[in-house]
Amino acid sequence: MNKVYLDNAATTALDARVLELMLPYLQNTYGNPSSVHGYGREARTLIEKARRKVAELLSVSPSEIFFTSGATESNNTILFGNVLHNGIKHIITSPIEHHAVLHTVQYLEKMGWCKVSYVKLDPKGGVDLEDLENQTKKHPNSLVSLMHANNEIGNLIDLALVANICKENQCLLHSDTVQTIGQVKHDLKNTPLDFMVGSAHKFYGPKGVGFLYSKNPIAPFIHGGAQERNVRGGTENLHGIIGLAKAMEISYAEMEANQNRTLYLKRLLIESLQQNIPDVVFNGYSNDVEKSIHKIVSITLPNSQNSDLILFSLDIEGIYVSGGSACTSGSLIGSHVLNELHPGSENSVLRFSIGKDNTEEEILNAVAVLQKIYQNNQGK
Amino acid sequence: MNKVYLDNAATTALDARVLELMLPYLQNTYGNPSSVHGYGREARTLIEKARRKVAELLSVSPSEIFFTSGATESNNTILFGNVLHNGIKHIITSPIEHHAVLHTVQYLEKMGWCKVSYVKLDPKGGVDLEDLENQTKKHPNSLVSLMHANNEIGNLIDLALVANICKENQCLLHSDTVQTIGQVKHDLKNTPLDFMVGSAHKFYGPKGVGFLYSKNPIAPFIHGGAQERNVRGGTENLHGIIGLAKAMEISYAEMEANQNRTLYLKRLLIESLQQNIPDVVFNGYSNDVEKSIHKIVSITLPNSQNSDLILFSLDIEGIYVSGGSACTSGSLIGSHVLNELHPGSENSVLRFSIGKDNTEEEILNAVAVLQKIYQNNQGK
Repeated sequence: MNKVYLDNAATTALDARVLELMLPYLQNTYGNPSSVHGYGREARTLIEKARRKVAELLSVSPSEIFFTSGATESNNTILFGNVLHNGIKHIITSPIEHHAVLHTVQYLEKMGWCKVSYVKLDPKGGVDLEDLENQTKKHPNSLVSLMHANNEIGNLIDLALVANICKENQCLLHSDTVQTIGQVKHDLKNTPLDFMVGSAHKFYGPKGVGFLYSKNPIAPFIHGGAQERNVRGGTENLHGIIGLAKAMEISYAEMEANQNRTLYLKRLLIESLQQNIPDVVFNGYSNDVEKSIHKIVSITLPNSQNSDLILFSLDIEGIYVSGGSACTSGSLIGSHVLNELHPGSENSVLRFSIGKDNTEEEILNAVAVLQKIYQNNQGK
Repeated sequence: MNKVYLDNAATTALDARVLELMLPYLQNTYGNPSSVHGYGREARTLIEKARRKVAELLSVSPSEIFFTSGATESNNTILFGNVLHNGIKHIITSPIEHHAVLHTVQYLEKMGWCKVSYVKLDPKGGVDLEDLENQTKKHPNSLVSLMHANNEIGNLIDLALVANICKENQCLLHSDTVQTIGQVKHDLKNTPLDFMVGSAHKFYGPKGVGFLYSKNPIAPFIHGGAQERNVRGGTENLHGIIGLAKAMEISYAEMEANQNRTLYLKRLLIESLQQNIPDVVFNGYSNDVEKSIHKIVSITLPNSQNSDLILFSLDIEGIYVSGGSACTSGSLIGSHVLNELHPGSENSVLRFSIGKDNTEEEILNAVAVLQKIYQNNQGK
């Protein structure tokens, strides 16, 4: 049975062209980039070439890009560094950030190192920009941390608008951009963003490697050797970094085509769900193609109770989707995002996330299977 | 020209059998281990299988093994966790630890979170066990952090002896074992060690992945999702973890043969250096096969001044070695280890580190080339 993989916000398949480029660095070229001999210098050159490529795609300087093990580490590095070494005493964030930000700021507050306040959200999880403006005025010299696209419900923020609000009120802006790197263009020459992050495996690159962008110097989070210009100790993940840059290059080259295709499939998914499951509820702005990222559609099935049972039935039929997010599926606590928007609801929540290899047929098949399962499940 | 790679303490070539096992997880099986569908469950199963394998080889429980991005992150996790959340107010370490430990404990002290004291060393960098005993008695409930094999000079500590001194005096013991995992057997059933670390790329596994062993619960260092039982947020490096476990399995299966072979080559290297470069000085205990790890030989060339020039000349001839360590080669500050043992010396320091694929011919060739270069360089 062919599987229908609609969990591309959790992780994506490694692009064959990326693997092809990585392979020599898993086979023959294996020097430690810190070694001064030929193998070491070759590795060092490749890493700096990868850094220049990432910087070029983001319209920033290579000196502003640091490679890490992934976006979670990148988020931690930015948040810890700002609070412990950049004079940040207050963080303004939202209650529906990914745990990589939310758990980190909660930890920093629990340790007594900073205060945290949360922006108001509209009923669909949209950031209340007036409240953001008031909070930044009330807490100048704060760090604002707001994700670009929500990983569960797909809501986008207007990054340029938010960045300008922050800048006007002397706040720094960090955005967890893990769901949008490689999906939409970030032109940092024209957006006054201070920090952002990416993970290669979200844009058809390898797992275990990511980066952070920092306009200003950032303190080390992982202490050790002098790698990454003293910001990140540890032998560099050579094949991973090469793969990240290649995956990002491909995603930029093919971005418009993939955006159009994914958006077409998203519209098809929304329409097909509405037609076949008339009581379907879309979470957040995920059915508004202007206000949400093209790859995510999140729904609630009102006449259902058990997400796990529906996910299990979909799984048996080879339809691979997530509950609120991959990270919260299978955990008993449920989704903090959906719980924020619909407190106390125990209805099934499903997240479809579309990738560049999905087809019309897969989308229609997924909806047909879900319809059948939902009918059988109703009222249970 | 065939290169002679004698920098295996910096990093090792990925074993072809490890890559073969990793490849399917770079090609077809790419699920996020946190996803509950088939691809996710398959990934989860593979990670837990890898964890069981690592635990079995170390004679510990799988619940005591946590995967990370490498030993530097593992060391940071252990040191931060103990100081911030395990009541450790004092760390006893040595001035010749790897920067992954040394810079981290210096940071923790600078932040006012703990005090650090340093054990006395003998003139060859051996840990003064009497001083360690006195310090542990003076500072009970401390954390002792001493590396198993020094990465620059190869000195080994007697882990069982040190562990028993710590235990008797109510101190915890962490050992940076990055240079010995996969090289010597660690039977943790019979050694009261509390924490240790490993990096796959030091034992013919992939870069970008490592682990930590913790007998007691450890607090998260990278905050985020619930991965690694809430200890380490971030999507797991699936192919890396699979590669780590396979590389470790192979290294254990072939350990005795590799130890014997490497030890034979080490003896050959020492003898050949003594015969051809009579004024060669061996650093630390690296010419004592009982007191140093079989893969490392570190030398000083007394009638020389410029490490870089000698390294450069060796490099041109295809002989790939490091200065003090890979991490400090090419940096202007020189080696903190050699500077501790021979303050003010500006003589050339070279580290040879032997791998499982090196041959007699390569060892003899390296010494012959070095002899020629050294003769030309003398007095410069």
